[in-house]
Amino acid sequence: MTNPTTTPVPIPGPRNIEWVGNARTGHLRLLDQTLLPNEVTYLECKDVQSVWDAIKRLSVRGAPAIGVAAAFGCVIGAQWDTFEESADHLATSRPTAVNLFWAIDRMKRVQPRTYDALLSEAKTIHAEDATMCQQIGEHALSFIQQLKPQASSVKPLSFLTHCNAGALATGGIGTATSPMYLAHQKGQPVRVFADETRPLLQGARLTAFELAASGIDVTLICDGMAGQVLREGKVDVVITGADRIAANGDAANKIGTYPLAVMAKHHGIPFLVAAPSSTFDMSTATGDAIPIEQRASEEITEGFGLRTAPPNVITYSPAFDVTPAELITAIITERGAIQPVNTERVQSVINHTSPKRTQ
Amino acid sequence: MTNPTTTPVPIPGPRNIEWVGNARTGHLRLLDQTLLPNEVTYLECKDVQSVWDAIKRLSVRGAPAIGVAAAFGCVIGAQWDTFEESADHLATSRPTAVNLFWAIDRMKRVQPRTYDALLSEAKTIHAEDATMCQQIGEHALSFIQQLKPQASSVKPLSFLTHCNAGALATGGIGTATSPMYLAHQKGQPVRVFADETRPLLQGARLTAFELAASGIDVTLICDGMAGQVLREGKVDVVITGADRIAANGDAANKIGTYPLAVMAKHHGIPFLVAAPSSTFDMSTATGDAIPIEQRASEEITEGFGLRTAPPNVITYSPAFDVTPAELITAIITERGAIQPVNTERVQSVINHTSPKRTQ
Repeated sequence: MTNPTTTPVPIPGPRNIEWVGNARTGHLRLLDQTLLPNEVTYLECKDVQSVWDAIKRLSVRGAPAIGVAAAFGCVIGAQWDTFEESADHLATSRPTAVNLFWAIDRMKRVQPRTYDALLSEAKTIHAEDATMCQQIGEHALSFIQQLKPQASSVKPLSFLTHCNAGALATGGIGTATSPMYLAHQKGQPVRVFADETRPLLQGARLTAFELAASGIDVTLICDGMAGQVLREGKVDVVITGADRIAANGDAANKIGTYPLAVMAKHHGIPFLVAAPSSTFDMSTATGDAIPIEQRASEEITEGFGLRTAPPNVITYSPAFDVTPAELITAIITERGAIQPVNTERVQSVINHTSPKRTQ
Repeated sequence: MTNPTTTPVPIPGPRNIEWVGNARTGHLRLLDQTLLPNEVTYLECKDVQSVWDAIKRLSVRGAPAIGVAAAFGCVIGAQWDTFEESADHLATSRPTAVNLFWAIDRMKRVQPRTYDALLSEAKTIHAEDATMCQQIGEHALSFIQQLKPQASSVKPLSFLTHCNAGALATGGIGTATSPMYLAHQKGQPVRVFADETRPLLQGARLTAFELAASGIDVTLICDGMAGQVLREGKVDVVITGADRIAANGDAANKIGTYPLAVMAKHHGIPFLVAAPSSTFDMSTATGDAIPIEQRASEEITEGFGLRTAPPNVITYSPAFDVTPAELITAIITERGAIQPVNTERVQSVINHTSPKRTQ
């Protein structure tokens, strides 16, 4: 990872991750996302277990944000003279989170292992993530402006997004949300339609919250309403994040993303995927090889604290769907836009400037 | 409307509407659909106000079912020697329900106005609706079998549906659900994917309930999962009801229907609309002229007794969307299939055998 090259815009709205105080006696402040959107409450994490708990119970969530939180957790481990065991313990909080292991590994390599050096490294990880978000936003915005030069200062630039690939999930202004924040900051009128994103309602609870908190005009819709919204010509661009992208550009993301891609194509509206280059899994040739996790039935049948389906009803609940590359207008990374989306272009953008991983 | 020509299959599962006893002292038993799927409770309506309340508070719902319930309500009005005022009062319970006025009008024309003649007419309205459902199902099933001759007794015939165009909404085995019940009754393996249908979850609460209660293999999914289910090749045919169909075949139905039509086309899967011929509004040339009602914000933000979106968030909540005729493989009515779906074919099927309305 290179050092930050641009100065990130300040994160609007409540900050999800913040270090308070100095390296020796400071602590980690985390926005408790489990209480959103009804309560804005911060967890003041002064020991490693409270950071572990916050990651485990999803108070902090989103792969980049988890990595950043764990890095600060390692600093707290050093404060308690338990750096190595704290780092190993934090790695068990979300066993499938690649960013978590990557961030902890970086912290372990800090030499000399002083409080200040550790805090500095954690802050660098945080800042790099913010820069990455910023760069994705800049590339996304110039790509959109190329596509839609008429989307000027008069008519709002209108986005539709799904789930939360937002500031709350990263150390910066998010991935899919990044061009929204940047355009808004530049004084361009912006309108966002946010899918509520069943079953877990990340769009309603998180995306609508963070965009509204930063003064962006956000309209919440149910997932099944996106078709009508597109049909009414209300949307300039559909943009989502991605959980994992295959070498050919097939992108796995929260369930409900694929229908947006199909409908965007039907309506001739660009469909963009915004994701850091670390999202690419070049060892996976196509999306067909991406395993689709099944979620618990209760998320559908009693997700709102109230049973809303017959007892013992069978459910089918894939956590993700895969959008094939040919439905994706472009994948926007911190290194630029990948368009057209195919193996050759992916390799060109991802491998070209990629620093060799040392691990 | 002609007299029933075929014997309807018995309605499986709990009956939504049933007359108990004789014309002079009997009463109306209604399944209280507001308590589904958690409680199967019946309302024993022995006076007109209880019928009015049941319609008003959606204990009985679905245009055909409301008409049938109101017809029986008129019989109760006669028992209390208040036929005329009861009939007029019942007409105020759901002011936009065309079937309600139509059924009450039929009851008013009964001569001589004896208890037995009135009950007989109400039962005829009920039976005609059941026959209409049965005929839609038979036409739908033979249409599907023409399209998919390989869907035999070995592999289940797999449907995907949205909202509840089911037995609970009609006097019979539903419209969209009718071919499911008929195939199941004939011993053909059937599998149904039911969209939960946000915001009001009619699919989860009603369709999953009634199909499971009748022993049909039903799988509940969130609306945004339908794309992945179609992509995985799990569905032979998508079938929904319709609230109103324009003269050219553009069909308004519960929000979330249109995306299914777009995705069905993308996957080369037939998309059928099942609706009685009374659903056609021949005075509306195309779907563009169908007004789209906006629903209350709270249905999205706190539909389940729990606030799941930020306070004061803006929502956009169209109750219906319009599926253009060119995305509909066929519209299945009690008079047969309309295919291709265009103004000429609609007029041919709807006007050809249509008895002149006397009112």
